[in-house]
Amino acid sequence: MSDSAESRSIALDAMGGDLGPVEVVGGVRAALASNTVFDRIYLVGKEDILEPLARDAGLLDDPRIVIFHASEVIGMDEKPVQALKQKRDASMTRAIELVKMGNCQAAVSCGNTGALMACGTLKLRTMPGVTKPAIATAIPTRTNHFILIDAGANPVAKADDLVNNAILGHHYARITLNCEAPRVGLLSIGTEEGKGNETTLEAHEHLKNIRDLVDYTGLVEGSLLFDNAVDVVVCDGFVGNILLKTCESLVGMFKQLLRDELGRSLPRRLGALISRGAFTDIRERTNKDRYGGAPLLGLNGTILKAHGSSNRHAITHAIRIAGEVAVHHLRQHAEGDIAEAQRRIRAAEDANPDSAGDEPTARPSA
Amino acid sequence: MSDSAESRSIALDAMGGDLGPVEVVGGVRAALASNTVFDRIYLVGKEDILEPLARDAGLLDDPRIVIFHASEVIGMDEKPVQALKQKRDASMTRAIELVKMGNCQAAVSCGNTGALMACGTLKLRTMPGVTKPAIATAIPTRTNHFILIDAGANPVAKADDLVNNAILGHHYARITLNCEAPRVGLLSIGTEEGKGNETTLEAHEHLKNIRDLVDYTGLVEGSLLFDNAVDVVVCDGFVGNILLKTCESLVGMFKQLLRDELGRSLPRRLGALISRGAFTDIRERTNKDRYGGAPLLGLNGTILKAHGSSNRHAITHAIRIAGEVAVHHLRQHAEGDIAEAQRRIRAAEDANPDSAGDEPTARPSA
Repeated sequence: MSDSAESRSIALDAMGGDLGPVEVVGGVRAALASNTVFDRIYLVGKEDILEPLARDAGLLDDPRIVIFHASEVIGMDEKPVQALKQKRDASMTRAIELVKMGNCQAAVSCGNTGALMACGTLKLRTMPGVTKPAIATAIPTRTNHFILIDAGANPVAKADDLVNNAILGHHYARITLNCEAPRVGLLSIGTEEGKGNETTLEAHEHLKNIRDLVDYTGLVEGSLLFDNAVDVVVCDGFVGNILLKTCESLVGMFKQLLRDELGRSLPRRLGALISRGAFTDIRERTNKDRYGGAPLLGLNGTILKAHGSSNRHAITHAIRIAGEVAVHHLRQHAEGDIAEAQRRIRAAEDANPDSAGDEPTARPSA
Repeated sequence: MSDSAESRSIALDAMGGDLGPVEVVGGVRAALASNTVFDRIYLVGKEDILEPLARDAGLLDDPRIVIFHASEVIGMDEKPVQALKQKRDASMTRAIELVKMGNCQAAVSCGNTGALMACGTLKLRTMPGVTKPAIATAIPTRTNHFILIDAGANPVAKADDLVNNAILGHHYARITLNCEAPRVGLLSIGTEEGKGNETTLEAHEHLKNIRDLVDYTGLVEGSLLFDNAVDVVVCDGFVGNILLKTCESLVGMFKQLLRDELGRSLPRRLGALISRGAFTDIRERTNKDRYGGAPLLGLNGTILKAHGSSNRHAITHAIRIAGEVAVHHLRQHAEGDIAEAQRRIRAAEDANPDSAGDEPTARPSA
């Protein structure tokens, strides 16, 4: 698992996703055309499908492309653990193994999320001090983006997991939002002290001890999320997944409501035609493909989940994000901060044993 | 605490809220003009403020209006328990006492939410089988509304609380959404069996046992909320509060984005002017005031929380909802179902003791 700056490679599970390999190959082609940081891209999947597609895309003779054969595909609706056991030669598994063996610095898949999490955790293992990985995703606001972490990997997070999410999210925001000191907030039901559930309030106490490491600004509530109050929103995977899916659903409804109402009469249709540039800009701003890659952070290697419905633009974007994460050595930076956080939290608990939770705070593995 | 159909009264905390008593009095006036089911409305608060306002509104000689003096007001930012202790003669407290003593069937306040919950629980107590009340709120979709319960009263809900929320939400939806058999879903991170956290999955098992009582359709995920998949969305107050505030924040952002983009150039402004009817309709459809009253369900009496920023329209709407809840005897119906649910859940646990939680499922009070 080298992070040498000289040579970087990435593995793409070319068979996953709803739109199939043709979009993955299209996305790779665009990434190569736009100065990707990767010197080599592995297209992992069925050779007899990928070779003709790569030929059509003019990539077959590109020295940067390697077609890596894998005979099986994990379906979107298969049960993760069972599928991983039965399909040893699945494209997703092979892509992750390329990271494990050090051939690649990152893997991207738009396949089955559960299987990707299970396979990633199994093959790469979590970083020291991390028990479960977390999904980080960028959500657009009117003027900016914020990072939501965890968007669904770990629905039963403990206080320590939330602290790790804060650290991982901080580093991810630093890289992808281009801001030196991203403000980190812990999602709760109010900003005052004491507002929240037990796990959140325990994590809040811990985070106050590492305020300087992650620019922790305190509790943040839902009403502030789209108001540029913080750059990173920390929560467990249960809340994060519900929040992300609800927001996508609400935006979809709002767009449909606009279409319905603007189509209801001739004057409305005419007005909408004249001002159509506004709607194009809004559609572009809230376009999922522009932020279609969500990394699984906390593992010993970079894995990105792209939307199941990813088209070539989303794939190109995911490759770009994977490159940024690899170039900026996110993992190494986060690892140091996680160790420091655990040292401080343990020290605080030793000094004030009554406030400690039932569980030890530093556990290297699940 | 009579629910007799002959005479119905409601108490309004006339001092709470950001916009002050003038909006409360305005809302009462509109309610009286539009055939409210209440024969008497108590305006609770400072006499020297309320009398002139009632006179200006032409209500002072209306036999249906009673000005009920209370010398103190609980501020929006005061700490609930402390404020309730210090201000024995607060307008909010007096309004709830009118329900407790049986003078009124319902109370409405747009004041401090925490104080309202604390005071309501303290004075009225929870219904048999309910440990904590829950806030139910109606959220508009493209074609309809759904009821979110709990929107923030109980952030540390257990499985039993979620079951009670399902029953209370079912009855509330039956009354306010005008549908005989509202479909009830339990909010989680996927619709497949096993998707969720421990409390949710325990509640899911219980709810399967009372499927016939509440038209339980199973787990529901965020992506389906605005898709008319269910009429009632059940969750704990932590998730519900975050979800509600985030949705409000996202809708606010989307509207601002529309304003920004449509104002960016002359053609866009012109187009927007021509199609302005569409935007008026959308604004009306997503207007908070139209569903501004959220009841605190599970108490021995009806208390409604109106938005802190409620204007007269929101107040009128809250009075209307309070009337519907009172007329349809929500509490009595829910009480029977809660007792039946607990009987079945206990029976299921007796038959299969391994699957029982650590806590007994039927507890009459906290």
